[in-house]
Amino acid sequence: MRSDLDQLMLERQLDALIVFGPDGLSGVNAQFNYFVRGHYIVGTVFKRRGHPAQLVHGVMERDDAAKTGLELVENTRWPMKEIMAQAESPFAARVELFKRMLTDLQITGRVGIYGVADVAATLSLIRDLERRLPELTFVAEGFRDLLQAARETKDAEEIQTMTAVGEACCRVVDGTRRFLQQHTVQNNGLIQSDGSPLTIGAVKRHIRLLLIEQGLEHPGDIIFALGRDAGVPHNHGNPDEQLTLGRPMIFDIFPRRPGSYYHDMTRTWCLGHAPEIVQQAWNDVRDCFDSVVAGLKVGGRTFDCQQRACEFFESRGRVTLRTNPSAQAGYIHGLGHGLGLDIHESPGFPTFADAGGILTPGLVFTIEPGLYDPDQDYGVRLEDTYVCDLQGQFRSLTPAPRDLVVPIA
Amino acid sequence: MRSDLDQLMLERQLDALIVFGPDGLSGVNAQFNYFVRGHYIVGTVFKRRGHPAQLVHGVMERDDAAKTGLELVENTRWPMKEIMAQAESPFAARVELFKRMLTDLQITGRVGIYGVADVAATLSLIRDLERRLPELTFVAEGFRDLLQAARETKDAEEIQTMTAVGEACCRVVDGTRRFLQQHTVQNNGLIQSDGSPLTIGAVKRHIRLLLIEQGLEHPGDIIFALGRDAGVPHNHGNPDEQLTLGRPMIFDIFPRRPGSYYHDMTRTWCLGHAPEIVQQAWNDVRDCFDSVVAGLKVGGRTFDCQQRACEFFESRGRVTLRTNPSAQAGYIHGLGHGLGLDIHESPGFPTFADAGGILTPGLVFTIEPGLYDPDQDYGVRLEDTYVCDLQGQFRSLTPAPRDLVVPIA
Repeated sequence: MRSDLDQLMLERQLDALIVFGPDGLSGVNAQFNYFVRGHYIVGTVFKRRGHPAQLVHGVMERDDAAKTGLELVENTRWPMKEIMAQAESPFAARVELFKRMLTDLQITGRVGIYGVADVAATLSLIRDLERRLPELTFVAEGFRDLLQAARETKDAEEIQTMTAVGEACCRVVDGTRRFLQQHTVQNNGLIQSDGSPLTIGAVKRHIRLLLIEQGLEHPGDIIFALGRDAGVPHNHGNPDEQLTLGRPMIFDIFPRRPGSYYHDMTRTWCLGHAPEIVQQAWNDVRDCFDSVVAGLKVGGRTFDCQQRACEFFESRGRVTLRTNPSAQAGYIHGLGHGLGLDIHESPGFPTFADAGGILTPGLVFTIEPGLYDPDQDYGVRLEDTYVCDLQGQFRSLTPAPRDLVVPIA
Repeated sequence: MRSDLDQLMLERQLDALIVFGPDGLSGVNAQFNYFVRGHYIVGTVFKRRGHPAQLVHGVMERDDAAKTGLELVENTRWPMKEIMAQAESPFAARVELFKRMLTDLQITGRVGIYGVADVAATLSLIRDLERRLPELTFVAEGFRDLLQAARETKDAEEIQTMTAVGEACCRVVDGTRRFLQQHTVQNNGLIQSDGSPLTIGAVKRHIRLLLIEQGLEHPGDIIFALGRDAGVPHNHGNPDEQLTLGRPMIFDIFPRRPGSYYHDMTRTWCLGHAPEIVQQAWNDVRDCFDSVVAGLKVGGRTFDCQQRACEFFESRGRVTLRTNPSAQAGYIHGLGHGLGLDIHESPGFPTFADAGGILTPGLVFTIEPGLYDPDQDYGVRLEDTYVCDLQGQFRSLTPAPRDLVVPIA
């Protein structure tokens, strides 16, 4: 967690960090966001081991910069006009500015680089700085880097925020169920008050209104997929399709507080009634879910959780990735993933090789077994967000019923 | 534009491109989005000069992948289970997978790398591939890279989309004005029907509803800033502050079609009446705007547009960045920026050194002069999105009135 940063830097023999900031408009750069705490801001974070993090920012961003709580350095400290005049290109000016920043902020030794940014601009900058500052070593960690490792475990404040986001998300799911139930049926399909078909597009639009009421944003497209589309796990659903009775719908929603922490949950619903094949799949998924939860323990490997899920499904006669790595029907994805400022964070729950994820106090992760068969017109998935709290207890952050059939009047 | 890709590759002596895809949830990766056309998808784009672009994607994304119109390659072509089993770490497995993809897709020679991605993961991958495939040269362009250059000029289809987004955005601004005018005044402040103050937070919430009605999304925070806050160009406004008569409000809105093209516009409003100092600043900004527009011509330099804006403001006795590079009052930013799939694209309109931006058919850009003085409790900015169409005519994509005073009953 946050308080581990200096220790992690020591373990990885890093003297300093640079975190590249984004254009600042989407909060997709969780590594940067971890420092600026959700404020939309253009800038770069520098941190020396044992010293507080510093944010170099533009003068126009000084108000938002002040809200981050970081040590602030205005970029007017460096004479950009003079640097631009002397440089032979805008790129050379950028390199010179970074060179001066590194020198003036006393960044030395082994320097880890982080952030989500334009890879061409960043790689060319680093290559040029390496030539011009040979006394620095720029370290790029290829897997579970220092910041990802720190972010993996949440502190009490982060868990409190994620608990509140989960409650708000469940209110949206509740409101969506009620919205569906307000509609009437004609020829097996749901219709709106004006007699027109209720489509997935209209449902998603209503969900977006519910999200705003709850103060949530949803950067990506909500998954609301019917029948065959539900059978393809990342299909988002056809907006023009009408909702009909007895067809399974996968409703996967992953909102966040603006610029802040995510929640991730999935329900599978059938309006009115469920076909037998769907009910059986849903039962298997629910039982797998409960079996995995019963096996959670501090110190356990996420790899073993996925093995357990595969074993469970195989015991019910289902195909899994383990038995057929290119299967398109059965249990065909990982059991879950860490989440926080990113929707997908370390650790994963891999099928093929242990990537080292360990269930640890502070970890927030999803559990989301599912069964799919697009040729049989169904997909089923159940997903809650779980926390291993700082006392080592596992609990769901998703206080919502697990219902398959949604009664329609 | 799109059709220039192979020619640009030839000019820059690039044999192939790699565009790294994002997690796919925010559409912030415009370089990738340019190829996958707004579909949320995890994957990597490869393109050889003279050949169509190929998308390597996961099997779960096959439905969205099919919508991109790209040549598709499912990643099941490579035996990930076997690669994972033989690799000594997840990182080594990723390198091996990329090595096989590059070989099998016949990527050779000089290879440009692009995209917005995790810089640590990408840089470490490239460094390792360089060691293992010494016959390849990975080219990272530091400024106005090939894809940015291609994206700078829009084709007829893109201009049509951006025209529609501009119209929808103007309907949101219109609706916001009407929303404000529905409120009544008490003690110089706007109040809601229940007697509570109308705050910036409530206005922004209403704007978000209007955006949904128009089918737009707004990934970043809308700027709606009053008085002193309007005097700091990137201040987004205090959500708890009440709207009051006679104080200038900067309303800067930059929505897009989900995962697609942006619009960007700004109005400065005073409710009921405008103070003299604000009216004078607004007149100067409007006149500067008109002066710049009158001087637009194909082949002109964006650098000269900014010089012209500075000259204009200086002729009115205003401070500019040119006369004081660290000024916090006066005209203190660039005149505009390209926009498209990113809110800020090449070219810029720089103050200090010509970065080579040229007004060209297909260019879409903002014009946004402003004057700021936080100590005098004001900021004023006017912004329209302009296009230089394929016939070389300049026209506004922002069909909205330029009004300062919004009458309140």
